[in-house]
Amino acid sequence: MEPKVKLWMEKNGLLVFSDYRAELLQRIAETGSLAEGAQRMGLSYRRAWGKIKEIERNLGVRLVQSEVGGRGGGATRLTAEGERLLALYRRFRRAVELDLDREFADVFGREG
Amino acid sequence: MEPKVKLWMEKNGLLVFSDYRAELLQRIAETGSLAEGAQRMGLSYRRAWGKIKEIERNLGVRLVQSEVGGRGGGATRLTAEGERLLALYRRFRRAVELDLDREFADVFGREG
Repeated sequence: MEPKVKLWMEKNGLLVFSDYRAELLQRIAETGSLAEGAQRMGLSYRRAWGKIKEIERNLGVRLVQSEVGGRGGGATRLTAEGERLLALYRRFRRAVELDLDREFADVFGREG
Repeated sequence: MEPKVKLWMEKNGLLVFSDYRAELLQRIAETGSLAEGAQRMGLSYRRAWGKIKEIERNLGVRLVQSEVGGRGGGATRLTAEGERLLALYRRFRRAVELDLDREFADVFGREG
């Protein structure tokens, strides 16, 4: 058996960030494009944009920055705050995954 | 912000146990009844029974034991193996929750 985990963060009972939202930011950072990032998540552009705006509103920070025009339309990048949130969340998630494996082995170890 | 976690366990890529399934066992243990345990989870008796049988099949253990008849119909109790699985899972989950809070404070601590 192996342990699995899904993580998210709440603020006053409201879901404000999660594995899923981190993945969306990650895809945008990778592709430099909200449209492509959205596509890789199987989301419409409109829905991905709404999701980003929602996270920004809930956390009170700007996460992405768009540039209009240029070859192939505008690019979208993460802001410094967006990069920072993503980096912290990924560090948090990695740490929890390591803990998870350790605790699982401690508790269920002798069972396989 | 506060971190939240959902846990489950897989065996060969198959979900075999989870917070939700642990809660179902817990409710059955509390009420001594599959019907009441199911009701407290908002599940039909049939669906709860199917879920229990599925876990038993996937893990290769008997988790509950029913007694037919008696006052108010038959009672359902956890077997020793069922009690054990539930106790281990709850211990595992509590340990992970403590880790989660610690890792969150480590990574996001100075942000609130």
